[in-house]
Amino acid sequence: MSISSMQDLLADFADRRDWNRYHTPKNLAMALAGEAGELAAEFQWLEQDEAFRVMDDPEKAKAVRLEMADVLSYLLRMATVLDIDLEAALKEKVAINEDRFPPRSS
Amino acid sequence: MSISSMQDLLADFADRRDWNRYHTPKNLAMALAGEAGELAAEFQWLEQDEAFRVMDDPEKAKAVRLEMADVLSYLLRMATVLDIDLEAALKEKVAINEDRFPPRSS
Amino acid sequence: MSISSMQDLLADFADRRDWNRYHTPKNLAMALAGEAGELAAEFQWLEQDEAFRVMDDPEKAKAVRLEMADVLSYLLRMATVLDIDLEAALKEKVAINEDRFPPRSS
Amino acid sequence: MSISSMQDLLADFADRRDWNRYHTPKNLAMALAGEAGELAAEFQWLEQDEAFRVMDDPEKAKAVRLEMADVLSYLLRMATVLDIDLEAALKEKVAINEDRFPPRSS
Repeated sequence: MSISSMQDLLADFADRRDWNRYHTPKNLAMALAGEAGELAAEFQWLEQDEAFRVMDDPEKAKAVRLEMADVLSYLLRMATVLDIDLEAALKEKVAINEDRFPPRSS
Repeated sequence: MSISSMQDLLADFADRRDWNRYHTPKNLAMALAGEAGELAAEFQWLEQDEAFRVMDDPEKAKAVRLEMADVLSYLLRMATVLDIDLEAALKEKVAINEDRFPPRSS
Repeated sequence: MSISSMQDLLADFADRRDWNRYHTPKNLAMALAGEAGELAAEFQWLEQDEAFRVMDDPEKAKAVRLEMADVLSYLLRMATVLDIDLEAALKEKVAINEDRFPPRSS
Repeated sequence: MSISSMQDLLADFADRRDWNRYHTPKNLAMALAGEAGELAAEFQWLEQDEAFRVMDDPEKAKAVRLEMADVLSYLLRMATVLDIDLEAALKEKVAINEDRFPPRSS
């Protein structure tokens, strides 16, 4: 499933619930920060090695998976309402980082 | 470009810089919260209608685009290190929300 | 109640539960981001004027109050474990902002 | 300096810059999430023991101190505009946690 198919799925979901009036760029940026905070909360008291094993516990695994889906959903909705090509943005950022952080010489 | 191709691109980028030791689930969750906070900061003093026009200003547009790319990058890296299928997670979440929030009757 | 009295109260609370091992600077910074995200979530779909009236609803008022207390708690715990004088930090920041943002001429 | 004196200092600072129109509850909640994200970013790649030593580096120490001051500032501004007694809220939360998390028997 491409990024744009996911965006279409979520746009349709919002349309059918009349949620577009809530899905403003400002509100979505706030919702994204909220979900990212909730995702961070799943890991806040864990040691690094415990955090690697978080998916071994079915209940925690589900929580992490769904929080990540929430972050992705709001990011995709923001991309839709601001008409941003996320794939192009990712490539733009990677190109910048290629310059800023040259790979180790081998 | 599929989600998994993007993950491969970022995994390769991290590999070539020896960054895998930093890219633990806990650190990535923290970095994601940081980037989501920076993205929110782009919108914090804007009125709703100003936020819709944020992409009209080339400098602000670039800032928003790159912050969104940062959020996406850390989300994809988390999916990789935790071996989470983001597309499946999104569908799982949408199915839950289909039940929780039935569409308006037409 | 002074900032330092609040810090003492929370330090004692953590001591009696053997929570100091969890209250590392990194974990507390993560927990603070999590709580700030949850606080933002209380306001994400509200219009500006609705947000001003959030304290009129007893249930929402309690949620906002307790989320703000959570943010304050983790900030105070961070100040304790990093030995930071929050009052001095606030004054330092205000002095910087006095220079950066001169008041309107009257 | 009491919490309320700090609030007065910041209220006066905002008044003299005509910033009250920006300092709405929604905007402040968003700004708080942004600053909490920036504070988290100071710690995201650090190991737990490195994070304890963050104040040994004068430049990093200043960054952490000022980010914490920013979080405190927006929290205090929110308390002012929503007319919330932060000290009472903290005590309310501590009382709830006293019940939820009984101290270890000694």
